[in-house]
Amino acid sequence: MPFLLRLWLHLHMHRIDPLQDFCVNINAPTQLICKNPNKVVAEDFFFSGLNKAGNTSNAVGSRVTAVNVNQIAGLNTLGISLVRIDYAPYGLNPPHTHPRATEILVVIEGTLYVGFVTSNPANPNLKNKLFTKYLYPGDVFVFPEGLIHFQFNVGKTNAVAFAGLSSQNPGVITIANAVFGSDPPINADVLTKGFQVEKKVIDQLQAQF
Amino acid sequence: MPFLLRLWLHLHMHRIDPLQDFCVNINAPTQLICKNPNKVVAEDFFFSGLNKAGNTSNAVGSRVTAVNVNQIAGLNTLGISLVRIDYAPYGLNPPHTHPRATEILVVIEGTLYVGFVTSNPANPNLKNKLFTKYLYPGDVFVFPEGLIHFQFNVGKTNAVAFAGLSSQNPGVITIANAVFGSDPPINADVLTKGFQVEKKVIDQLQAQF
Amino acid sequence: MPFLLRLWLHLHMHRIDPLQDFCVNINAPTQLICKNPNKVVAEDFFFSGLNKAGNTSNAVGSRVTAVNVNQIAGLNTLGISLVRIDYAPYGLNPPHTHPRATEILVVIEGTLYVGFVTSNPANPNLKNKLFTKYLYPGDVFVFPEGLIHFQFNVGKTNAVAFAGLSSQNPGVITIANAVFGSDPPINADVLTKGFQVEKKVIDQLQAQF
Amino acid sequence: MPFLLRLWLHLHMHRIDPLQDFCVNINAPTQLICKNPNKVVAEDFFFSGLNKAGNTSNAVGSRVTAVNVNQIAGLNTLGISLVRIDYAPYGLNPPHTHPRATEILVVIEGTLYVGFVTSNPANPNLKNKLFTKYLYPGDVFVFPEGLIHFQFNVGKTNAVAFAGLSSQNPGVITIANAVFGSDPPINADVLTKGFQVEKKVIDQLQAQF
Amino acid sequence: MPFLLRLWLHLHMHRIDPLQDFCVNINAPTQLICKNPNKVVAEDFFFSGLNKAGNTSNAVGSRVTAVNVNQIAGLNTLGISLVRIDYAPYGLNPPHTHPRATEILVVIEGTLYVGFVTSNPANPNLKNKLFTKYLYPGDVFVFPEGLIHFQFNVGKTNAVAFAGLSSQNPGVITIANAVFGSDPPINADVLTKGFQVEKKVIDQLQAQF
Amino acid sequence: MPFLLRLWLHLHMHRIDPLQDFCVNINAPTQLICKNPNKVVAEDFFFSGLNKAGNTSNAVGSRVTAVNVNQIAGLNTLGISLVRIDYAPYGLNPPHTHPRATEILVVIEGTLYVGFVTSNPANPNLKNKLFTKYLYPGDVFVFPEGLIHFQFNVGKTNAVAFAGLSSQNPGVITIANAVFGSDPPINADVLTKGFQVEKKVIDQLQAQF
Repeated sequence: MPFLLRLWLHLHMHRIDPLQDFCVNINAPTQLICKNPNKVVAEDFFFSGLNKAGNTSNAVGSRVTAVNVNQIAGLNTLGISLVRIDYAPYGLNPPHTHPRATEILVVIEGTLYVGFVTSNPANPNLKNKLFTKYLYPGDVFVFPEGLIHFQFNVGKTNAVAFAGLSSQNPGVITIANAVFGSDPPINADVLTKGFQVEKKVIDQLQAQF
Repeated sequence: MPFLLRLWLHLHMHRIDPLQDFCVNINAPTQLICKNPNKVVAEDFFFSGLNKAGNTSNAVGSRVTAVNVNQIAGLNTLGISLVRIDYAPYGLNPPHTHPRATEILVVIEGTLYVGFVTSNPANPNLKNKLFTKYLYPGDVFVFPEGLIHFQFNVGKTNAVAFAGLSSQNPGVITIANAVFGSDPPINADVLTKGFQVEKKVIDQLQAQF
Repeated sequence: MPFLLRLWLHLHMHRIDPLQDFCVNINAPTQLICKNPNKVVAEDFFFSGLNKAGNTSNAVGSRVTAVNVNQIAGLNTLGISLVRIDYAPYGLNPPHTHPRATEILVVIEGTLYVGFVTSNPANPNLKNKLFTKYLYPGDVFVFPEGLIHFQFNVGKTNAVAFAGLSSQNPGVITIANAVFGSDPPINADVLTKGFQVEKKVIDQLQAQF
Repeated sequence: MPFLLRLWLHLHMHRIDPLQDFCVNINAPTQLICKNPNKVVAEDFFFSGLNKAGNTSNAVGSRVTAVNVNQIAGLNTLGISLVRIDYAPYGLNPPHTHPRATEILVVIEGTLYVGFVTSNPANPNLKNKLFTKYLYPGDVFVFPEGLIHFQFNVGKTNAVAFAGLSSQNPGVITIANAVFGSDPPINADVLTKGFQVEKKVIDQLQAQF
Repeated sequence: MPFLLRLWLHLHMHRIDPLQDFCVNINAPTQLICKNPNKVVAEDFFFSGLNKAGNTSNAVGSRVTAVNVNQIAGLNTLGISLVRIDYAPYGLNPPHTHPRATEILVVIEGTLYVGFVTSNPANPNLKNKLFTKYLYPGDVFVFPEGLIHFQFNVGKTNAVAFAGLSSQNPGVITIANAVFGSDPPINADVLTKGFQVEKKVIDQLQAQF
Repeated sequence: MPFLLRLWLHLHMHRIDPLQDFCVNINAPTQLICKNPNKVVAEDFFFSGLNKAGNTSNAVGSRVTAVNVNQIAGLNTLGISLVRIDYAPYGLNPPHTHPRATEILVVIEGTLYVGFVTSNPANPNLKNKLFTKYLYPGDVFVFPEGLIHFQFNVGKTNAVAFAGLSSQNPGVITIANAVFGSDPPINADVLTKGFQVEKKVIDQLQAQF
């Protein structure tokens, strides 16, 4: 089948399955098309380096190394990606959401304290529920799509985890950065009223991001 | 929300063409079925009362009156709902996300300052972008699915808006409540590290929710 | 609608989580791409003017003012749109279907008589069911996707309603125009047999559209 | 259609990959479950009799014999169905829509004049477009989802066609029956204004259905 | 993330209702767009020739004549296609899968022995189940999406069938060709261990394809 | 798999946004409902034991340990799962397909030779393409949904990999078992013609499964 037709089959999709075996992403303005299938090679489905620890010398002491459609062009349309997460002792993958994916995490080494919070209850007198668990090597935990979640290395040693995500481009919204570190900053009146604290507390929070 | 209703929300899927003209929700354990079509009446597609202002005497000075599958059983499977939002002077609909819907809002009266923040940029040195606008009667604004957004009444008078949401059960995660008011509370070490502030600031924030 | 816009409507899919925060529609053959996110502005999510009544001096005495992806480029892929509908006294929004959306309508002023008809019953001896309701300010009614429906202003004064639709490009098929006013006209033998009336009745009907 | 079957059609969603190889429909209130896979037999995927002509002695001179989830329980969730259509000489499959399916038709014998009408153009001064074709044995034609279409046997002999539809429960709205034959009838003021003709014309039309 | 990549993530979407009445496929690098709707003609929805028998003089004695988006550009995005299958006496449509479609087949003439095999049972001691049936003219059978299936003409005469498939581009994986006839061949160690036979058996099998 | 679980897999659809934060699977005929959210606990999202090697003393020398909705009830509707794969020296994960998922694999230890085969080319004179790669620790490879693929441990030591799959219930069809080991066996005439070999070769193959 001519590759442009394959392209059309791809672009003019209907069902969730990709409309051809694959559509390798070509990131070039002059080629707004799937890569010519006759030129696709195994390397288009390949990535190397998840055996190396990520650099955790940063404010939160953790590093996410992502393998999604930005790293593997062949993941286009296929609805899955992978990450390796490294945690220094007491390192934190801070509260965040993935707007387009559920995450399933397996611990390779170390001890993690993990949790997620449910959405607003129907009854405003109730509170958002927190679910937490301590995870050890070989333990698996699920963070449902769109919910705020975190992982915290409570051990004295480094920790390592791998996680699958249900999108080739899951997206991340780190709460602290989005709320207190946006560009431009969110109006302080909105934040003082939204978080019910004095302006100086908001100033302090905004100063961090 | 009663769990059988949650069940219905689950069974009566979202973002699917209904498989018949409609499936009116029946929230009863003994009738895990769509309402008998022969017994469906116009009232199953009806709700009354959006002409009345919601009560805004609360900490944030706003009130959302929702009309979704919880109010109109006939909305099951149909992928849409409606809300009326009332704002006292300087009332705020605080930063929140809808994990399952985009929102399109039209202002009926008053002046609103609205905004949303994009997800994390690929380049960690960049910041999450804030998009804002002042809205006057007849103005329409869109809050894309899953992004943190807010509306703030900057006028001296009440404000009223209507909004359509792209789900019969959009869900809401109010950031401040989910992060600082969960039950049980999120571990203070997670929050101090996640928000890069001292414990007393976190204590103050948690005290509000 | 210009065909490139139609193209965009096609490419910028429907009932899917957008694969990024948003994809602002660019209607230009030389830029078959989402708008460069770095150039996206708040105005891409904005529309103004729904405070103004639509002009109802036409044969049916009603006017639909739509705010969909044709008016707000940022609605691309987000699965929702909004309309304002104005009705002169005895004005009618005539029988029509939305092939790609359910509609949820709220009455702002006036009194509307509304209804929809179900699809063919399995038993050919039964008839298509009509569901109707009189609506007053603050009343909400749902018209399920793909079903023939109408709204009729039965009051002596103007009426106004807002409605959300579950697609950024819902489409409309006005029955009378599609059946009796197509270009070219449908063969009269098809219509006389289809509607079981004499040719002169069909001629009369076709003469109107 | 019995309401439990409608329930099944609802639960056994449409346009979703089935989550197991198949889920055979069980239409019984006491068994709101897929048939026990260990009890599934080949007959659950089988239907017999499309070699027999349908009875066309009716007002329009045509008969549709459907094979969908109502005839083959194993079609549940699989997004496809089949019909055989018989046409007496000058028999008509009258103007109708399938709210949940595109149709692809192949002529086995006879000569059909077929057509479909597009939805409302963006420019109200334009008209809905009619696309038509004469079809002979072996010819194939496509009727896109949700559009009004018809087939007319213009030959002196019987005609036969088979068609595939992109849903296990496509649904049918026959325009004349839905508009002029609903139960109860649509208010005559709505129809006279909607079709721009005198009441006696509407009376005549309603008298037929 | 570079905006063209974001674009790709956006364009490479999945499972969607078409966003307009139709999007006629244009297979040309310089026109990466739907055909201009003003230039669309009835022929874009038309194919001719399914009245002619396919040539079955080949190793398996069968021929599939497909009518999908490759033959009818107007099928783009519409989720359905059609095939005619001809079988010489004792002709076989060999074991294959359609990765993107369920098939519903109707026998026009001849006698077919058909079957499909279910996926691996949860209990490794059980076996994959085979469902079979003998089909005669007018009989209909369903092959669920993704399962291995076949049709065998057990009669002394030619057989003919039509089938609908739930995708405009269903795809086919013929097991024997994919496993024993790939280019380059699959490593013999993989096949000998995978099929638990000696290398000479694998050699024999590979020699055929 | 117990049929009620299969039922749940069916009801708890695939690739749909869950309609609430989660719907924990309850596998009991008397409770055809999501688990009461008030009774959901962190353990519903938890699995333990992926640190232990699977038992590879079997004919192919490999073992897949799956963590999907059968192991973690909270995965319902969330569209993702995880597996650990262990390989003895020269162990093989034999040619198979996942009818409902793409797989992304990361090698933890050992050296794997992996590959997948594309579907039939449009031109029958071409062959199905094989893509292969040697993988070392930290290497990642993607197997697109529905395509036949395998992994072979070419090292003298054990190998271990983790893989994410884009469904909470991906399904597996092992080619050799489905074609040569079904219950009852596929008719030998079908296999001899389908694989173009003598009956004794088929007998040998069938004898293995």
